[in-house]
Amino acid sequence: MTRDQMYALWEQRQKDRGIDIEWVKERLKNFKVETPSWGYGDSGTRFKVFKQRGVPRNLFEKLEDAAQVHKVTGMCPTVAIHIPWDKVDDFEKVKEYAASLGLKIGAVNPNLFQDDDYKFGSLTNTDAAVRRKAIDHIMECIEIARKVDSKIISLWLADGTNYPGQGDIRARKNWLEEALFEVVNAMDSDMRLLIEYKFFEPAFYHTDIADWGMAYAFAMKLGQRAQVLVDLGHHPLGTNVEHIVAFLLDEGKIGGFHFNNKKYADDDLIVGSINPYELFLIFNELVAASLDPKTAKTAENIAYMIDQSHNIEPKIPAMIRSVLNVQTAYAKALLVNREVLKEAQMRNDVMAAEAAVREAFECDVTPLLEAVREEMGLAPDPMKAYLESGYGEKILERGIGGQGWE
Amino acid sequence: MTRDQMYALWEQRQKDRGIDIEWVKERLKNFKVETPSWGYGDSGTRFKVFKQRGVPRNLFEKLEDAAQVHKVTGMCPTVAIHIPWDKVDDFEKVKEYAASLGLKIGAVNPNLFQDDDYKFGSLTNTDAAVRRKAIDHIMECIEIARKVDSKIISLWLADGTNYPGQGDIRARKNWLEEALFEVVNAMDSDMRLLIEYKFFEPAFYHTDIADWGMAYAFAMKLGQRAQVLVDLGHHPLGTNVEHIVAFLLDEGKIGGFHFNNKKYADDDLIVGSINPYELFLIFNELVAASLDPKTAKTAENIAYMIDQSHNIEPKIPAMIRSVLNVQTAYAKALLVNREVLKEAQMRNDVMAAEAAVREAFECDVTPLLEAVREEMGLAPDPMKAYLESGYGEKILERGIGGQGWE
Amino acid sequence: MTRDQMYALWEQRQKDRGIDIEWVKERLKNFKVETPSWGYGDSGTRFKVFKQRGVPRNLFEKLEDAAQVHKVTGMCPTVAIHIPWDKVDDFEKVKEYAASLGLKIGAVNPNLFQDDDYKFGSLTNTDAAVRRKAIDHIMECIEIARKVDSKIISLWLADGTNYPGQGDIRARKNWLEEALFEVVNAMDSDMRLLIEYKFFEPAFYHTDIADWGMAYAFAMKLGQRAQVLVDLGHHPLGTNVEHIVAFLLDEGKIGGFHFNNKKYADDDLIVGSINPYELFLIFNELVAASLDPKTAKTAENIAYMIDQSHNIEPKIPAMIRSVLNVQTAYAKALLVNREVLKEAQMRNDVMAAEAAVREAFECDVTPLLEAVREEMGLAPDPMKAYLESGYGEKILERGIGGQGWE
Amino acid sequence: MTRDQMYALWEQRQKDRGIDIEWVKERLKNFKVETPSWGYGDSGTRFKVFKQRGVPRNLFEKLEDAAQVHKVTGMCPTVAIHIPWDKVDDFEKVKEYAASLGLKIGAVNPNLFQDDDYKFGSLTNTDAAVRRKAIDHIMECIEIARKVDSKIISLWLADGTNYPGQGDIRARKNWLEEALFEVVNAMDSDMRLLIEYKFFEPAFYHTDIADWGMAYAFAMKLGQRAQVLVDLGHHPLGTNVEHIVAFLLDEGKIGGFHFNNKKYADDDLIVGSINPYELFLIFNELVAASLDPKTAKTAENIAYMIDQSHNIEPKIPAMIRSVLNVQTAYAKALLVNREVLKEAQMRNDVMAAEAAVREAFECDVTPLLEAVREEMGLAPDPMKAYLESGYGEKILERGIGGQGWE
Repeated sequence: MTRDQMYALWEQRQKDRGIDIEWVKERLKNFKVETPSWGYGDSGTRFKVFKQRGVPRNLFEKLEDAAQVHKVTGMCPTVAIHIPWDKVDDFEKVKEYAASLGLKIGAVNPNLFQDDDYKFGSLTNTDAAVRRKAIDHIMECIEIARKVDSKIISLWLADGTNYPGQGDIRARKNWLEEALFEVVNAMDSDMRLLIEYKFFEPAFYHTDIADWGMAYAFAMKLGQRAQVLVDLGHHPLGTNVEHIVAFLLDEGKIGGFHFNNKKYADDDLIVGSINPYELFLIFNELVAASLDPKTAKTAENIAYMIDQSHNIEPKIPAMIRSVLNVQTAYAKALLVNREVLKEAQMRNDVMAAEAAVREAFECDVTPLLEAVREEMGLAPDPMKAYLESGYGEKILERGIGGQGWE
Repeated sequence: MTRDQMYALWEQRQKDRGIDIEWVKERLKNFKVETPSWGYGDSGTRFKVFKQRGVPRNLFEKLEDAAQVHKVTGMCPTVAIHIPWDKVDDFEKVKEYAASLGLKIGAVNPNLFQDDDYKFGSLTNTDAAVRRKAIDHIMECIEIARKVDSKIISLWLADGTNYPGQGDIRARKNWLEEALFEVVNAMDSDMRLLIEYKFFEPAFYHTDIADWGMAYAFAMKLGQRAQVLVDLGHHPLGTNVEHIVAFLLDEGKIGGFHFNNKKYADDDLIVGSINPYELFLIFNELVAASLDPKTAKTAENIAYMIDQSHNIEPKIPAMIRSVLNVQTAYAKALLVNREVLKEAQMRNDVMAAEAAVREAFECDVTPLLEAVREEMGLAPDPMKAYLESGYGEKILERGIGGQGWE
Repeated sequence: MTRDQMYALWEQRQKDRGIDIEWVKERLKNFKVETPSWGYGDSGTRFKVFKQRGVPRNLFEKLEDAAQVHKVTGMCPTVAIHIPWDKVDDFEKVKEYAASLGLKIGAVNPNLFQDDDYKFGSLTNTDAAVRRKAIDHIMECIEIARKVDSKIISLWLADGTNYPGQGDIRARKNWLEEALFEVVNAMDSDMRLLIEYKFFEPAFYHTDIADWGMAYAFAMKLGQRAQVLVDLGHHPLGTNVEHIVAFLLDEGKIGGFHFNNKKYADDDLIVGSINPYELFLIFNELVAASLDPKTAKTAENIAYMIDQSHNIEPKIPAMIRSVLNVQTAYAKALLVNREVLKEAQMRNDVMAAEAAVREAFECDVTPLLEAVREEMGLAPDPMKAYLESGYGEKILERGIGGQGWE
Repeated sequence: MTRDQMYALWEQRQKDRGIDIEWVKERLKNFKVETPSWGYGDSGTRFKVFKQRGVPRNLFEKLEDAAQVHKVTGMCPTVAIHIPWDKVDDFEKVKEYAASLGLKIGAVNPNLFQDDDYKFGSLTNTDAAVRRKAIDHIMECIEIARKVDSKIISLWLADGTNYPGQGDIRARKNWLEEALFEVVNAMDSDMRLLIEYKFFEPAFYHTDIADWGMAYAFAMKLGQRAQVLVDLGHHPLGTNVEHIVAFLLDEGKIGGFHFNNKKYADDDLIVGSINPYELFLIFNELVAASLDPKTAKTAENIAYMIDQSHNIEPKIPAMIRSVLNVQTAYAKALLVNREVLKEAQMRNDVMAAEAAVREAFECDVTPLLEAVREEMGLAPDPMKAYLESGYGEKILERGIGGQGWE
């Protein structure tokens, strides 16, 4: 039984379910996920960073690793950078080197949490000089974005407090608002500020942008150039993330994702590894929104980005796995028969509506993804292709102690 | 040692801390908390409603019970009603009877969850006829509000779904938005729609208004007449509720509270019984906002309302206890020395800022509250006054099986 | 392409993965799940019970409905009963009627939460007379179990308190221990007491058997006849349930499951509907334990039972769906290549070990389950078979208001 | 108004409540809390460790800092050490230096999470050589304990896995059990192994000792020398920690506490800073158990230890504050009138029983604590005494970069 025969059977079954497979394939071929430069470096918990042999020593090596992921998956042509971790003298060179690897630079991420001045806050610090420094750092990132042809500033703000009373919550909110206005006004009209929120950590009592509602409130005031970024790990337990995604889609205010997974807090595990159904349900909303005229433009303009912390896994395989998990979830979401679903929903047939969604999740999309990869000129099994490439062995010569989170 | 001497000592100590006690007393005397008619009736869990002898059999008896709470606490002159539980033919009579008891009718609460038609949603139902019915019910409540001179419609929407796929989340959002616009446009200019949110229950997969961000988004679109209502039990575990309160205060978009307490879910326990510090911290934000010109008007216009479910406690004592817990938290919040706090915050003195808030919480405010009550012509110990009044025994003749949640 | 061809291909692929398909089929044919009598009746939330037309009016009709589930799934030959909901004068008749339907009575469930005497506890009540009544009720259930040839008493204790201070936690623990000893000592040597735990609800501050550790501590003292029952919905958010299952398996102290699913609290949704991967991972532990001599006996003696509350779904289809979800999870767990897994685990190959488990989950087991059903003389699609049987329409004549939770 | 007069009034009020103040004072004077050597060093989150000027550079300086805390509080005569962080060549010298400062060494804490060998586990590693190394490290700690006259080995095990399938949960459990037996058997008969549990972090999927039930199960098998250690931050949200404490007290299996506080995860904030009522309720159980013959011996033998991570606070003041918060909670718990409480509990008077506990919490114990301190020859306000001592300024000469968590 050849792979072609296998696929033919699979395709027939989907056609019998009423699925337009050519459309599905087209969507899959156009689907892109950005990987982060810092995802190739060492990371860990507050208790220990286990250093791995072979992690990249600078941005150029990170790009080389990212190129391997793109090479085998065909869907990761951009790389997010983190300033100052990835700061170099000549970004023109970075752009050129990236291009030589088939890559472009994606979102530029300011770092507002590692300078000693930010101990008590950056954009929300009581000291105007620290707030100025933080704003200036974002301005610098906007400048870098222009240099590397990036259109996205991805802002995660670690600011917050650890104890009741420590900070004046409303004063901080107003300082933050003021800063964000200055930042957004400095951006080009085709640039976007993606505002990330986080429930807690590293602040343990209150985080200045604690949930999507706060990020949304700021984004609404800031206008077209500001949108919300959803990091899957940044919600309280029990949160219906796909609901938030659907709400933001309807409001035209979701601009991107940071993909990862968690069991309890912001565990930063491989996306889809703990709760694959949740990831699928998020894509179910994204696909639905892309088919609705009201939301299509927003849905099509979303930046899909990995943001994880591979503490014990080998970096590049973990990244490949992450990207494939996202692709799998997306592929399954494309297999929902939306007419059947809509009809069941409208007649309040709970069992049928649920089944319409679940049925797509239960599909094994391996034959589809293999077929798509072959049509794209890729090996059918990206992980195997990478592991057999010898790249993982080659980079061991970089030694231990490459660039991590600082 | 007399109570007067005790209070004199207490007052001196507060003055030494820099507190303006006359101002504190004035604030306490003007503080009001609304009790809910349904809080005097039987309630329970899905497993069992333990019926109590003596619960009121109709709205008039509920008002009589509420009058007892006001009589001993001096701070509960209004009573929220729930339609249709409290629907009567002649609301003029209700108003008159309330007045004769020293009461007024407060918020009017539509019920959009107990009609069989609402099994799959009310304002978000796929069936336009059901949506119409639900809107009409709110319209009826607005009419009742006019009759009883109430200015508040308090909207809790139980709508949601139990399974992935069951409902079209965005379609429901749009139906809801449409309905809310119609409702708000029908309200008088001095009326307010308070939009409640709830994390889950009775819907278990997705709740159409799941968090403050959604309620806020609707309230922003709806304009001046719409604000958010914060029910303390309706948040995910770990949520910093006082942060949400501060954020909404700064946005001018908080209109009221439903007070209760929880350990895990929406447990509807006596407010302040599980985590008294959290209640104090919420009032700490409210007091601070009332002193800030930007937020004072919003802060002073907040409807403080009890919303609990006394499953095993005797109803009236539980209500008195709830009101006193709120008063205690408020009194402590008034004892924060805000200059000391602000100064510590500004210099990032974490320990001093935290201590400034905590110190007020640690104060025993019994002498203060007793003094305020005496000045108001009340007994110093409201619970004792009630228990000795004989009212609890008298109402036993009402028998078992008074009006509960249906 | 016939179903047989489809299956042949599927089987080949599994054989290529190293799976012994005959063994898998054998296991699936011997797998049984018990359905609960109360799962066929009306249920709801504290806000509303939406009554459905056609729900059974007595135990005999519940058995008829259960027989339909067994008829189409072939794996539900026993039915759990709840006393006093299912109490009848002549249990001999029940046994006979069940037998005529191809059924047997399974676990007997005492009800210690709906009598007014239990308002403040049953086995933990401060009043010795109430404790005696509660013990006697369990004794009655043991008697009934003997009559219906059941070997399992399934004990869920709703006892707990709502407020700090309300109860003497240790005194209650000692009363409970005393009662459990009396109960277990009254049981036949081949009977088992399955002790259920629950994190919260209906008690909201403290639940006397709050977690698996407490149930385990009691079961250890009580000896061979006592084991722990794991209800999937009774854990705090973030709990690794499969870990608890594995631990109890290793201790020989897990006796049964109550299957359902939740997103936040004890939502009692259809098992596997919210987090199917978790259900699979639980079965992954059960299958592994069944292959280990140390744990095989415990693993093979586990009572798999559904315990849900279908508030808005039609009862029988919801039950069929639940049973099928369990079967699907079990089938996938049988497809884990345990040698590959073990080897990857031993060499700490995180990626490979995770993939070995995940790969089985990603398999579409529809062809396998259809094949097994055909070999068992069942229709390949049980839901379709039921919906086409006309039974759902026939029972509508029972009307509205069948027997619910009281 | 002098402090003495103030106290006299306070005392009278407590006597009127039926409290034996001499007994309360006696208990307070005998109450001890251990501080941890690592609590004086730098710590932080995975994102950043903000280094503070003046943190100790070695164990001797840590002891000097700890001595300051003892000097002003009078209740911290022992210091926990962490090996290898505090490993020195000559522990005799440590003992002597401690004695010269009025201190003794308390619990010895092995470190099983920072060696590269422990990346995939220590006592649960698949590699027998790593397990041996980990056991040997604990053996070394037992040896050190003997040298410094400590009777407690405090074991926190970070072991766990990050992904489903990564580890064989039951195999790990059995390796762990084997190791613990070896360790306990090597301990002197008057030594205790305190087994800590943790819900998650640094392992994010499964933690080998995840909850009190697992720690308890091991402790039961290991016999008299093994007990459970309760770290307040290591529970899922919503957990009733005082219930667990009461249960373990009744089982004679609680040996110690690690005090800290949290809002969401293991935040390691100052104990009592986020939820002071919870801390009080825990002490309420401890005081009650100390008065019950069945549990008195266990209650009196508990090691009270601070374990926090002061990321942004100055170290010594944060430690003083922590100790005082514990003392405050304990003092309030001593003020519960246990006869009144018991009587209300026995007659199921929910309101009165709750009030009996809450009333004690609401007491301002400042006058009591000041009086006790004066009787002990201490300054009435320990924090003030420390801040005025000049010690904080003196240690600045140590510079930045003292010993942190590695």
